[in-house]
Amino acid sequence: MKELQVELKDKSYPIYIGTGLLQQQGLLQKHIKSKQVVIVTNVTIAKLYLDAVKKMLAGYQVEVVAFPDGEQYKNLEYVYQVFDCLLEKKFSRNATLIALGGGVIGDMGGFAASCYQRGIPFIQIPTTVLAQVDSSVGGKTGVNHPLGKNMIGAFYQPQCVIADMDVLDTLDDKQLVAGIAEVIKYGLIRDLAFFEWLEKNMSLLLARDKKALAYVIEQSCLNKAEIVAEDEFETGVRAILNLGHTFGHAIETGMGYGKYLHGEAVAIGIGYAADLSKRLGYISEADVNRIIALLKLAGLPVQPPKNMTVEQFVSLMSVDKKNVDGKIRVILLESIGKASLPMNVEQEYLEQTLINYAG
Amino acid sequence: MKELQVELKDKSYPIYIGTGLLQQQGLLQKHIKSKQVVIVTNVTIAKLYLDAVKKMLAGYQVEVVAFPDGEQYKNLEYVYQVFDCLLEKKFSRNATLIALGGGVIGDMGGFAASCYQRGIPFIQIPTTVLAQVDSSVGGKTGVNHPLGKNMIGAFYQPQCVIADMDVLDTLDDKQLVAGIAEVIKYGLIRDLAFFEWLEKNMSLLLARDKKALAYVIEQSCLNKAEIVAEDEFETGVRAILNLGHTFGHAIETGMGYGKYLHGEAVAIGIGYAADLSKRLGYISEADVNRIIALLKLAGLPVQPPKNMTVEQFVSLMSVDKKNVDGKIRVILLESIGKASLPMNVEQEYLEQTLINYAG
Repeated sequence: MKELQVELKDKSYPIYIGTGLLQQQGLLQKHIKSKQVVIVTNVTIAKLYLDAVKKMLAGYQVEVVAFPDGEQYKNLEYVYQVFDCLLEKKFSRNATLIALGGGVIGDMGGFAASCYQRGIPFIQIPTTVLAQVDSSVGGKTGVNHPLGKNMIGAFYQPQCVIADMDVLDTLDDKQLVAGIAEVIKYGLIRDLAFFEWLEKNMSLLLARDKKALAYVIEQSCLNKAEIVAEDEFETGVRAILNLGHTFGHAIETGMGYGKYLHGEAVAIGIGYAADLSKRLGYISEADVNRIIALLKLAGLPVQPPKNMTVEQFVSLMSVDKKNVDGKIRVILLESIGKASLPMNVEQEYLEQTLINYAG
Repeated sequence: MKELQVELKDKSYPIYIGTGLLQQQGLLQKHIKSKQVVIVTNVTIAKLYLDAVKKMLAGYQVEVVAFPDGEQYKNLEYVYQVFDCLLEKKFSRNATLIALGGGVIGDMGGFAASCYQRGIPFIQIPTTVLAQVDSSVGGKTGVNHPLGKNMIGAFYQPQCVIADMDVLDTLDDKQLVAGIAEVIKYGLIRDLAFFEWLEKNMSLLLARDKKALAYVIEQSCLNKAEIVAEDEFETGVRAILNLGHTFGHAIETGMGYGKYLHGEAVAIGIGYAADLSKRLGYISEADVNRIIALLKLAGLPVQPPKNMTVEQFVSLMSVDKKNVDGKIRVILLESIGKASLPMNVEQEYLEQTLINYAG
């Protein structure tokens, strides 16, 4: 087992990465403060791993809230079900919430924990590659609004993150691949060597080679933990983690939540961001092709979604959290391995990309 | 104008107390970072003071969300209307939310600000005595759940608090009196001299004597600011601000939100807490009578609500935020001017108070 630390002073916490972690009762229990525990999960994951987690909690008062599976259920109405459960069961402020699932569950569970009685402790047990390499680390929680992705939420750090690689055995290929989009992102924004490693070893990763998976999860979490430690509330550098997300979120919202997996939308978004970076003179055509090639090698979609108009993109992108005074800002690439801070973009160039990018 | 400071390191902020503050454009504008401003208020206050606040914001993009007036509307559904408005108008993360109203509006506006895009700046303009002396200071925000008061929320500090005493001129007597419950609370929990001042000068306060009002608001805010600076997240001493609130919240929830004003329920709750403190041997019968006498002098209700059973009280009190592992804890008085930290209470004594307290 590897242990990384997210350094946030009195809010610091460990990320455990390894195999067999869902059998290690002590690892989980040492982060739980009272006998009241609620597990927030979805129906797919509940069938696979709920019993294992419950087994680690013998002797505790354990309640379960299981949502339907998918981004389309990531809204305030479902989070409210957690409040209903906790109040019916008279859960106190020292109760612990465990988010057992992928990115959607981590975001919803974390947000519920941040709001219940103004904040109770919570633990992330991510069960997808995407959640293990990205969304479970760093304390971003929240839900979607029909007009914008992740628009309602909180910065709220967990007590720990338990990333058991064994759970990836049951992950379907589509979910595995979607997670790799965020992995490629780390290479692009600040880690050229990692990007190059991915170019050489993608086939190992797709074959779920355990050593390759372990390396990728650790390297991604290291990158994420360093950025979050530097800028918890995204007043500066943390925004680079949003490479591809401004376009990606617009696609998720515009096409209807759940139509694309988050990672798939991010992959297409990275394609757009690379194209725009080229048009603004930051990177070369060859760089763009190299980026697209790696995304394709992973099996990720890169083609723009059909049916979305330029106007729709511009409208959706204008409610992005990076914007200032309503002006669209995006993360660009200065090179492979180096992202820019959020940049205002002239409408003209943005539209050129939106019209011409073809994947 | 007096200026007090709430000392919370990088989250420190001023409380301005005085007259004519809603004509001081510069005072408000220096705490606003962008041109986008949303005012959250209720329909009663909007008629009286919305124009004055808008006048201070000439040149800004100002949106308004006005709720119906009352505790019964303090829920997530109404807060959602703020998100709808902000997203429709494409408000960015540097937009500012102004909560213009009493405690209900401050709690709802502050919570909306804490959640929108994971947190935007907000300003408190409290318009009741209760809000000026208590709820606008300290960063407690949130909404009610049918099963418990303030059960969904966040600790989220404002940029500043602007307490203009002029707005109290339009406050009806019932609201004025309700606010005095929290004032008496400060005397009881940590400020004997203030309690004695209130015993001598209550008639001035009820006559809305400006000097008396100014003294009371300042002294209350001073007490609140000191406690909050010491314990922002209520892991210790801040809980004493809850004197009377465990019983009071049970009354508000049990009788139906809006039946009693918050301050009225707190006054009755203080009566219960005093009675329980006496039964446990902390204070004398004479102390209890002195406390009840001051509450009555202010015109506050002290009689227990009709129709609420002991079982209902116990059930509602068992979801209080001070509880640990589901066990009821309350703030008691060790003397007039000194509160205890949260104490576990034997069911037997609690029931004696619930059965016998008569006001």
